[in-house]
Amino acid sequence: MKEDRNIYLTNVPLEEAKERFINRVLMDKVFKATEIIPVDEALDRVTVSPIFAQKSSPNYSAAAMDGVAVVASSTYGASEANPVRLKRAKDFIYINTGGIIKDPFDAVIMIEDIVEIDGDWIEIYSGAGVWQHIRPIGEDIVEGELIISAKHRIRPVDIGALLAGQIREVEVYKEPTVGIIPTGSEIIHVDAPLEDGKIIESNSSMFAAMIKEYKGLPKRYPVVPDEYQLIKDSILKAVDENDVVVINAGSSAGSKDYTANVLREIGEVIIHGVATKPGKPVILAMVKNKPVVGIPGYPVSAYFTMEFFIKPLLAIYTHHRFMKTATITATLSRRVVSSIKYEEYIRVKLGSVQGKLIATPLERGAGVTMSLVRADGVLVVPQRLEGYEAGSQVEIRLFKAADEIENTIVSIGSHDLVMDLLGNQLHKNKSSLFLSSAHVGSLGGIMAMRKGECHIAPIHLMDTTSGEYNTSYVKQYIKGEKMALMKFVGRSQGLMIKGGNPKGIKGIEDLKRQDVLFVNRQRGAGTRILLDYYLQREKIKAEEIQGYEREMTTHMAVAAAIAGGTADCGMGVYSAAKTMGLDFIPIAWEDYDLLLPQALLKDEKIEDLIAAMKNHEFIHSIEALGGYNTENIGKIILI
Amino acid sequence: MKEDRNIYLTNVPLEEAKERFINRVLMDKVFKATEIIPVDEALDRVTVSPIFAQKSSPNYSAAAMDGVAVVASSTYGASEANPVRLKRAKDFIYINTGGIIKDPFDAVIMIEDIVEIDGDWIEIYSGAGVWQHIRPIGEDIVEGELIISAKHRIRPVDIGALLAGQIREVEVYKEPTVGIIPTGSEIIHVDAPLEDGKIIESNSSMFAAMIKEYKGLPKRYPVVPDEYQLIKDSILKAVDENDVVVINAGSSAGSKDYTANVLREIGEVIIHGVATKPGKPVILAMVKNKPVVGIPGYPVSAYFTMEFFIKPLLAIYTHHRFMKTATITATLSRRVVSSIKYEEYIRVKLGSVQGKLIATPLERGAGVTMSLVRADGVLVVPQRLEGYEAGSQVEIRLFKAADEIENTIVSIGSHDLVMDLLGNQLHKNKSSLFLSSAHVGSLGGIMAMRKGECHIAPIHLMDTTSGEYNTSYVKQYIKGEKMALMKFVGRSQGLMIKGGNPKGIKGIEDLKRQDVLFVNRQRGAGTRILLDYYLQREKIKAEEIQGYEREMTTHMAVAAAIAGGTADCGMGVYSAAKTMGLDFIPIAWEDYDLLLPQALLKDEKIEDLIAAMKNHEFIHSIEALGGYNTENIGKIILI
Repeated sequence: MKEDRNIYLTNVPLEEAKERFINRVLMDKVFKATEIIPVDEALDRVTVSPIFAQKSSPNYSAAAMDGVAVVASSTYGASEANPVRLKRAKDFIYINTGGIIKDPFDAVIMIEDIVEIDGDWIEIYSGAGVWQHIRPIGEDIVEGELIISAKHRIRPVDIGALLAGQIREVEVYKEPTVGIIPTGSEIIHVDAPLEDGKIIESNSSMFAAMIKEYKGLPKRYPVVPDEYQLIKDSILKAVDENDVVVINAGSSAGSKDYTANVLREIGEVIIHGVATKPGKPVILAMVKNKPVVGIPGYPVSAYFTMEFFIKPLLAIYTHHRFMKTATITATLSRRVVSSIKYEEYIRVKLGSVQGKLIATPLERGAGVTMSLVRADGVLVVPQRLEGYEAGSQVEIRLFKAADEIENTIVSIGSHDLVMDLLGNQLHKNKSSLFLSSAHVGSLGGIMAMRKGECHIAPIHLMDTTSGEYNTSYVKQYIKGEKMALMKFVGRSQGLMIKGGNPKGIKGIEDLKRQDVLFVNRQRGAGTRILLDYYLQREKIKAEEIQGYEREMTTHMAVAAAIAGGTADCGMGVYSAAKTMGLDFIPIAWEDYDLLLPQALLKDEKIEDLIAAMKNHEFIHSIEALGGYNTENIGKIILI
Repeated sequence: MKEDRNIYLTNVPLEEAKERFINRVLMDKVFKATEIIPVDEALDRVTVSPIFAQKSSPNYSAAAMDGVAVVASSTYGASEANPVRLKRAKDFIYINTGGIIKDPFDAVIMIEDIVEIDGDWIEIYSGAGVWQHIRPIGEDIVEGELIISAKHRIRPVDIGALLAGQIREVEVYKEPTVGIIPTGSEIIHVDAPLEDGKIIESNSSMFAAMIKEYKGLPKRYPVVPDEYQLIKDSILKAVDENDVVVINAGSSAGSKDYTANVLREIGEVIIHGVATKPGKPVILAMVKNKPVVGIPGYPVSAYFTMEFFIKPLLAIYTHHRFMKTATITATLSRRVVSSIKYEEYIRVKLGSVQGKLIATPLERGAGVTMSLVRADGVLVVPQRLEGYEAGSQVEIRLFKAADEIENTIVSIGSHDLVMDLLGNQLHKNKSSLFLSSAHVGSLGGIMAMRKGECHIAPIHLMDTTSGEYNTSYVKQYIKGEKMALMKFVGRSQGLMIKGGNPKGIKGIEDLKRQDVLFVNRQRGAGTRILLDYYLQREKIKAEEIQGYEREMTTHMAVAAAIAGGTADCGMGVYSAAKTMGLDFIPIAWEDYDLLLPQALLKDEKIEDLIAAMKNHEFIHSIEALGGYNTENIGKIILI
């Protein structure tokens, strides 16, 4: 039924939405809650008031050395020529570092500077100055001294100083409790058996981890089905038990999205809909004077919404200084187009190539959750802008540490599982190194190399006249710089078919059949070029193939489409077919090589890469996958 | 008894010591311990192997919008002019976002694009493309895809991706357990009553907090008295129960320092004594193939030893990337002298004055623990260097975030408790601002101001001819820049005497007495200048005063000396006397003002400072201390 839908979302700019929401929260002063805890448990907590030392440390005059405590005046005149003898108990006592100096003693002579005559007498050879080698009272901390100020985040050295000043407890701001309510009738817990039509609930685990990083205390509630009354009850309960509540999914303007209506009924909706992409359909509300935030369901939207609103919100409660994300300036490698309706958050990969920091947008759409995992940073395109041109200097908010970016080998080109395995081996060998991959197809890789955007470009491009791979394309497109090919693997390419081959497909010929639905690769992909070569040989026109125009950007996506039943076959590599349990008709062996500038062959990171490639364990694991030939792995061909 | 002492420490350079120790630990491969934990508990843990998705997500074709699922081919030709009618169940079904798309349906039309005729029929006005508005299988994560590589530190987004790929558990490297053993017969727990001759044990709390920051699991043991067998038993027990052991105090070469001998007996001492200052007498050993580190007793030595050795050691177990301390380049404000025998770690304060980043060494010796608390960073003087000249560009390892330094008002000059309170008020008003104080006395403050090393200089210098305060000194020493005085407080100066005045001291006159032991302030201190003025008036010579040459650098240190019985009286401010429970003979009221350049009066941070000064609560709290006059507080005098 086309039920009553609240399809009207506002489009409030992010900064304004944050300000209005935070101001509303600040009005209620709930964030001033404090508690008294033992100093030992106070690491990272924030003080409420300034703290002064209760006692001096040392609280007595203490020997600074091991030796003897003496009365300084009784040692005057002692010299090598005229040593002075001192009697135990009367003139001196033995003392160790930290021992208390009591009347009448007022100086310490180091043990190395005395000679024992017998059990009762010692000799000294120079006079002692008053207070020599004695730690005065308060040398560490003076009673009444300010140890730490108010609003100070306690570090280990502060803990030591507080205890030395005999402070046992501190009053600190309480850590905010955050209730997490997942909703949705298609959502199930990860331990439940996976049925068709169900999606695993993963957002609340990600939220709980983010809240811990924000120094809050997450409290998770069970999944709430899409029913008005149940959602209402769960929010009311969570609001009672927590300082802040986040409720996930159902915040878009769909028929089953009750959250906004519930919040209007039981509280006050301040904002519903902000001008960001992703993250538009967020709900910012107050219920019983506590903030409740409705977070969009898509993992990437959810992630950004938490960062936009929950992170600064919790900083108010914890009184931590809000740490701005580190940023870095980079050159944008390709044009980015953005809607002027929204502030867009575009995930990018970063790499330092020939001394220049390059930002390459991750492919949008596919692998959404993985785009967050693989992102090195985020490019923010403001609302008023339509995008940035290739070559622009842009500011990137970092997801990874800047030095990690420096130690990253940037790969742009055709994707294969073996690139992920190679990156894994590289990082395993040397945990300071990383391999980052952007998947744009073979020709895209050559273009990126030509523009100096990457260190290596994986390619598998067949010269349709000679049948040779890669070299002729490189010579054609990249002139002026000496290039090399690092041989990687031979790959078995062919037709991937649903397991059991229900449509009895035998080869390229069958693609002409009306009842066979194909799924293709994108233009510029080596696999597509291979397909076109064979179509030409068989004299088959593209229009004759159902689904020729339907494009996927990776082998795995093609395989997934076939396995999922939305296509009958596609061209791809054996390993992808095998992973998805598909049948495979081999068509050709192709060379999957890494293109790189000859100048980089001497680069330390590239030498490490070659070493990783030649690792026996690594080679063995590739061969075990099937469909790969490793006989030339790591060989360098100069072009 | 001058017992058998192991007084022979080596002087191994730090890097070499670290390398030898770490290599020895690496030989035993104990750091490869792993465990399998739920993904939900894996935040910040490091993976052992690469992790591949078990299932695609979505694992089925899912509607991307709310609407109706249709067979695309049955919608062809629909238009505004020629709408197409579809029958429920036969031609379409209602579907929500996330709903499963099953045969024969292969497209989704958004709910906004349909019109309901009645309960069974709808009308559409344009054809649907195959797979439109459908999330394909694997849009988030494809089965078999590499989610995270080996040796990857798990972040919240990784947790979300792992669960979406239906990974429930991960194998991670175990967190190392670290046993902490405090030793010493003069050490007591903070909750025990404080007796003379006892020092509160604060180091193990600081260690436990540092170990938590290093991502280890600290386990604390009770204080062990200085007895050979007890120390031996405690180490053996801790070694059995932990991966790593740190044992504190008793590592210097004193008679009661059994630790090195015990370690030689039950294990292997790799290094005893490194060429750093502080931190020389560290012991690096192995017992039953586990690292045991003997940490020096002084809090500052202990802190650095933990950073030098325990931090990199634990990184081996956790497999975290070892994060180098952030550094910054600054100009050294005064000459630093260092021994060529050691690599010295000198605590400094940092401030950005007139666009230049200035590093000022904290006074060495006094307030040792507080030097760690107040330090903004550390200047490392290599072994081969004798120091750095004033004005040198030096690299400072940061203790605080770089932007915190930018937001710091640098004060160099005469110290008073009200400066600490002012800094506290400033930070309380605006938690992004900090006030940092270096205590060098009034004349030191004027010199620092002249050299452009600080923003403000607290001074109280009496012109002995006119009796006026501060202005004439500024005119004399600082020419060429227009200066201003921010009036702060009037302070009551006088003689501080032990409570009860046992020696019957009545005034300056009594300082001549043989039985009266004085304690003075350092040269250049306003208080000392005041004393000399009155001595001159009373025609008393410095030599006539017992203890005139004994110098302390702050009022509180003078007060502490008197309270501790190591002096009978000293010159100082009423508030210091009151804090230490001393009697007080008032001598004069002096002007304690803040000197600053007129140009800074417009600086936003200085305006915030003046606002803090004029805060009613603040003024009230100063008056409550006694001995302060606030009638001119915040007034600006142009010089």
